[in-house]
Amino acid sequence: MIQYSNMYRDELFNNVLPFWTKYSRDEECGGYFTCLGREGNVYDTDKFMWLQGRQIWMFSMLYNNVEKKQEWLDMAEHGAKFLLQHGRDNEGKWYFSLNRQGQPLVQPYNIFSDCFAAMGFGALSRASGKGEYAEIARDTFHNILKRSANPKGQYNKIYPGTRDLKNFALPMILSNLSKEIEEVLGKQVVTELQEEIVHEVLEVFYKKDIGLALENVCPDGSVSDSFEGRVVNPGHNLEAMWFLLDIAVKSNDQALINRIVNISLDILEYGWDKEFGGIFYFMDIYGHPPQQLEWDQKLWWVHVEALVCMAKCYQLTGNEACKKWFEKLHEYTWNHFRDERYGEWFGYLNRRGEVLLNLKGGKWKGCFHVPRALYQIWQVFGKDINTHTPASVISA
Amino acid sequence: MIQYSNMYRDELFNNVLPFWTKYSRDEECGGYFTCLGREGNVYDTDKFMWLQGRQIWMFSMLYNNVEKKQEWLDMAEHGAKFLLQHGRDNEGKWYFSLNRQGQPLVQPYNIFSDCFAAMGFGALSRASGKGEYAEIARDTFHNILKRSANPKGQYNKIYPGTRDLKNFALPMILSNLSKEIEEVLGKQVVTELQEEIVHEVLEVFYKKDIGLALENVCPDGSVSDSFEGRVVNPGHNLEAMWFLLDIAVKSNDQALINRIVNISLDILEYGWDKEFGGIFYFMDIYGHPPQQLEWDQKLWWVHVEALVCMAKCYQLTGNEACKKWFEKLHEYTWNHFRDERYGEWFGYLNRRGEVLLNLKGGKWKGCFHVPRALYQIWQVFGKDINTHTPASVISA
Repeated sequence: MIQYSNMYRDELFNNVLPFWTKYSRDEECGGYFTCLGREGNVYDTDKFMWLQGRQIWMFSMLYNNVEKKQEWLDMAEHGAKFLLQHGRDNEGKWYFSLNRQGQPLVQPYNIFSDCFAAMGFGALSRASGKGEYAEIARDTFHNILKRSANPKGQYNKIYPGTRDLKNFALPMILSNLSKEIEEVLGKQVVTELQEEIVHEVLEVFYKKDIGLALENVCPDGSVSDSFEGRVVNPGHNLEAMWFLLDIAVKSNDQALINRIVNISLDILEYGWDKEFGGIFYFMDIYGHPPQQLEWDQKLWWVHVEALVCMAKCYQLTGNEACKKWFEKLHEYTWNHFRDERYGEWFGYLNRRGEVLLNLKGGKWKGCFHVPRALYQIWQVFGKDINTHTPASVISA
Repeated sequence: MIQYSNMYRDELFNNVLPFWTKYSRDEECGGYFTCLGREGNVYDTDKFMWLQGRQIWMFSMLYNNVEKKQEWLDMAEHGAKFLLQHGRDNEGKWYFSLNRQGQPLVQPYNIFSDCFAAMGFGALSRASGKGEYAEIARDTFHNILKRSANPKGQYNKIYPGTRDLKNFALPMILSNLSKEIEEVLGKQVVTELQEEIVHEVLEVFYKKDIGLALENVCPDGSVSDSFEGRVVNPGHNLEAMWFLLDIAVKSNDQALINRIVNISLDILEYGWDKEFGGIFYFMDIYGHPPQQLEWDQKLWWVHVEALVCMAKCYQLTGNEACKKWFEKLHEYTWNHFRDERYGEWFGYLNRRGEVLLNLKGGKWKGCFHVPRALYQIWQVFGKDINTHTPASVISA
């Protein structure tokens, strides 16, 4: 699979990263533009904390793991400076969005802003050696844990007690985040948290009879027959599975690896659109109409996370079904999402795989899923296939 | 146009209303089911206040205006009983949703719940002659006015002061609501409010150079170059235009009528999908990618409100362009949305006009837009065309 490794590396450094270095830096007001049209034109100047934090992480991670390029460190510091100045309220909670100048637009109702800020500052603290960044990452992380019982705080519209549901997203992100900033948090905190999260995902959210992890379950783990309880997001499932694979590799747990591989294959089989190809965005476990009108659309992140998942599954087990799925996904994504002409990838396709929004970045798409996936697959296939690859190689 | 009048009347009474009388009544717990599959099967039992209030209104309105059918009054009372018992919090604010049994699920963050509750109870007070219903409608209406500066209250996530925008939806609904419950509010209140709203819609939200009304504008009425500021919802525009037409007819203002007709024609020209037919759901005034992923979908309410708008425009002016648009819309909607086999109309089509969600009702679609539009068009075309039709006939 070394040919894929080279392809994904070249795509990262020749077609994707240059797009962000060229177009996303706001020289005048600081931070990054993420609302970029097909050709890199800035069509909106709002700054969304998810994407600001993620871009800091992306450039710091490359600096840490690939090469000590001053340009990458500068890019990460550029975003960090803006976030330090404008990103948090008085209690250290991260806003959801700011205007171009850094004035708050949307309150800190969304805890994933904090997750990606912690991830960015954690990676940058290692890259820059600056203790203040580590402190921000640590404080933010503990703030997340403190808020995790009711992450939305006053903005939570759910009436308490009638149908309290547990959500899949936070444990999933925490599993990845804690791994990314292990240096900042300390090994023991991370190990304990990860054990708990593996349990949560596989024993609580994953439903054996359905063969999928649900987005929301009742407090006792049972299925809630409601819009929120019935919804499945196959891309979210597959992303979670490769986060868990990294944990399984770290603890050298081959049984867990095999279990995750089987689950991942089931999810792909379920989520794949047999008529037009690609993976559905949302599905209802009972086949009822989902409330998400965009349910049948094909999203970039869903597909690139599926690629990463299958690459890791194959690399770890040599399972031929994983290889076949990887190749099928590779063909679909490169043919439909990739933009050879202007760089980077499209984000949103309709069910038929036609471009739905002519953009490279927006409110939710930034410098993150595509370059991270390219990096992961480059690394995973950079080594010969080995069913007993040591942990350190795969979870790179 | 008498043939259309008959068609729309028959469709209302033979194909649409029976669907709701047969399938939506929850005999066990009260209120209405609105999550109904293609064949009328209940696929979810949550009760959404928008739709509960609207269904009370629909059956009361038919009782008031068409025939004193006990069955219709019973249906309205059935919903009202459930809402009276469960619908409000201690401050009289209407919840967004309840579970089947009536326990609150989602807090009263959404003021349109209150709008449709007021509309329902207002119409039912007239139908039933019960003063308590009138009182609820009046109290709720004054509550709406009191909350109108910050309708979402604590759930409002917008940071104050950075980009305060005025929204189009509330003045629009109020223009229709006040007319519907004029009996409860008194003539003077309604007239003053309507004058203010005509001004708001046509002088503040409507932008002459763009030829459209925006969903959100800056406090001084200027355009905000942001996702919220750039978005246009053609269906919302057209619905607003026929609300304004009713007001213009009432005040016998022919100049205003002509102005609204011209604006409506511009909106349709702008919102029509020249490639696949139908009206887009969301557009960006500068042609940038909108943030709504469902932007290119074809929604039932958009199309039936457009039909009502063109029917009234034609009836009031005899303008041939309006007739052509009515016929074009008629053909599109009846071919794509109507379900001859199982009754009622589909709600959500993809850009190509294919059914996207195989449902007749859901979280947002209930017994409202389709039957109201059928009723309106039946009434409008029930009279011979007359460019000077008296107000009382058209605004029926």
